[in-house]
Amino acid sequence: MELNCGNLDDVPTSDTPVCVLGLGLIGGSVLRALTRAGRATYGWNRSQAGVDAAAADGFDTSSDLAATLARADEGHVVLVAVPVPALDSVLASVADHAPHAWLTDAVSVKAHVAKRVAAAGLTSRYAGGHPMAGTAQSGWSATDAELFDGATWVVVADDATPARAWLEAASVGLDCGAAVVPAGSAEHDAAVARISHSVHMVAEAAAVTAEADPAASRLALSLAASSFRDVTRVAGTPPSLVRAMCESNRDALLHALDDTIAELSAVRGELAEHGTVAGLVERGHSARRDYDAVTRTPFTPALDGAGWQRALREAGHAGGVVTELP
Amino acid sequence: MELNCGNLDDVPTSDTPVCVLGLGLIGGSVLRALTRAGRATYGWNRSQAGVDAAAADGFDTSSDLAATLARADEGHVVLVAVPVPALDSVLASVADHAPHAWLTDAVSVKAHVAKRVAAAGLTSRYAGGHPMAGTAQSGWSATDAELFDGATWVVVADDATPARAWLEAASVGLDCGAAVVPAGSAEHDAAVARISHSVHMVAEAAAVTAEADPAASRLALSLAASSFRDVTRVAGTPPSLVRAMCESNRDALLHALDDTIAELSAVRGELAEHGTVAGLVERGHSARRDYDAVTRTPFTPALDGAGWQRALREAGHAGGVVTELP
Repeated sequence: MELNCGNLDDVPTSDTPVCVLGLGLIGGSVLRALTRAGRATYGWNRSQAGVDAAAADGFDTSSDLAATLARADEGHVVLVAVPVPALDSVLASVADHAPHAWLTDAVSVKAHVAKRVAAAGLTSRYAGGHPMAGTAQSGWSATDAELFDGATWVVVADDATPARAWLEAASVGLDCGAAVVPAGSAEHDAAVARISHSVHMVAEAAAVTAEADPAASRLALSLAASSFRDVTRVAGTPPSLVRAMCESNRDALLHALDDTIAELSAVRGELAEHGTVAGLVERGHSARRDYDAVTRTPFTPALDGAGWQRALREAGHAGGVVTELP
Repeated sequence: MELNCGNLDDVPTSDTPVCVLGLGLIGGSVLRALTRAGRATYGWNRSQAGVDAAAADGFDTSSDLAATLARADEGHVVLVAVPVPALDSVLASVADHAPHAWLTDAVSVKAHVAKRVAAAGLTSRYAGGHPMAGTAQSGWSATDAELFDGATWVVVADDATPARAWLEAASVGLDCGAAVVPAGSAEHDAAVARISHSVHMVAEAAAVTAEADPAASRLALSLAASSFRDVTRVAGTPPSLVRAMCESNRDALLHALDDTIAELSAVRGELAEHGTVAGLVERGHSARRDYDAVTRTPFTPALDGAGWQRALREAGHAGGVVTELP
């Protein structure tokens, strides 16, 4: 069986077995969701405890990375869901042991991962992915086969993305219950800096502010109600995960933070000088209404012409989502 | 019947009829919750539409403020739940038509309301209140008898607060299903600036930031998931309500905003210069854990000695809550 040619008809994509590397909240939930959808799946985790927990729930898992990747080298899909600091060593193992696998990932920054994939010589097998779902919990015990139901799942269509890799990655997202949004790495990273990474920073800052006045902090935390609970919920995310995604998206996050700080500084000035917060509040309310009104339009991607990647990016940018593959 | 003497034994506090002025989300929910608890209640609303909606649900309501307050002048409790801009005119009517009523309120700032109450000559009848509950909805249609169940409800114990007024206000909070936290006006306002008003500001700023890059805004809103949804939820609150509470707590909010802006500026600098967000993320996570670990200790308030107001403030500050009255 020749799987290295990019011919889309070789194997129905929904039948390709999937090898999940890293069985935390996201990787473990992918394993559960794909298994629910009838896919052949297996997984690897660095810690034996994670392997054992997943095996106890009936999943095919191992802590032997080389042996796991040797199985995947039969043209399977490898989905990388390890923390950013572990990325390089895992990608080096993929290059060594599964050069014929298709490669995707579930890491929340895409330009950084694409660079590391290129450094490992795997670009011709790779389409990046990012499921837009999560909770503040972590580890196998938090995994949920329904985590991605109704969510969006970005699959990167950069100019260098191979068509077969894109389809395999998109098929994983669809089988997990998500709708697929095509996007470029750079525009994805700019977007998530604004709807996730800077949002985590303001949640952390809001939590710290509640305690910053020693004379009021105990009373403040005691009185905190739903607005505080909702805004600071993501500050409960393990710090290592927040650091990994924010620090690997540094440039885009700096731009987003500059905008957030400018807004808060402007409203502080307006309140001090004119006693009003109207400017920020009216625009914030309007932006939230825009978010509530977002609509997505299903479309069928075409991956057979020149420049298909650009066409997909433009469709995703305009609100298009893929809910089934051609 | 002499109700103007401050003798706590005149009338069991839980039997005192309650007159609610303003039938929006908070006032209307108070009317529902007290009625559920078996209290005699009636209400006034400025707009006839609100009066009619509440009457259609079986409540005793009117748009005639003078006539409504004439009923309350029999030593009833008047609870003011009107928007801040309407406060002065409503308090003037209370002074004119119900000088013998006990007075409390449900406005989210306390020093400002206490000043307006003093200006109306009503301090000897008044104990301020603030139920720590709400949603982003507004109006009678959003009212809910269960809105305050399990919530905290601040009842102000300033040095000038009369004991009988404090008990009447606390009894209203308890009958609404809340636990009562005694606090001073100034410390309440400092606390809510940090757990509500500045939190609204960062939510608004996060929503605006999502749209601030025109090249990425459509994609950003399309990809926004649970972190964005939760953090910006309160940006869906009607702007007039956010403005009223923030602008009437100007000084305390400026202090809180200064702390939030300083945190975000510091993490921006750390990320730009050292590539890390660790300092803010570790402290934000710790603050959120402190919030999750908050415990409250029920205590029975004593209102019969000199300096009882100070003793209540200290008890509230130390985590004490009142769940039943002496």
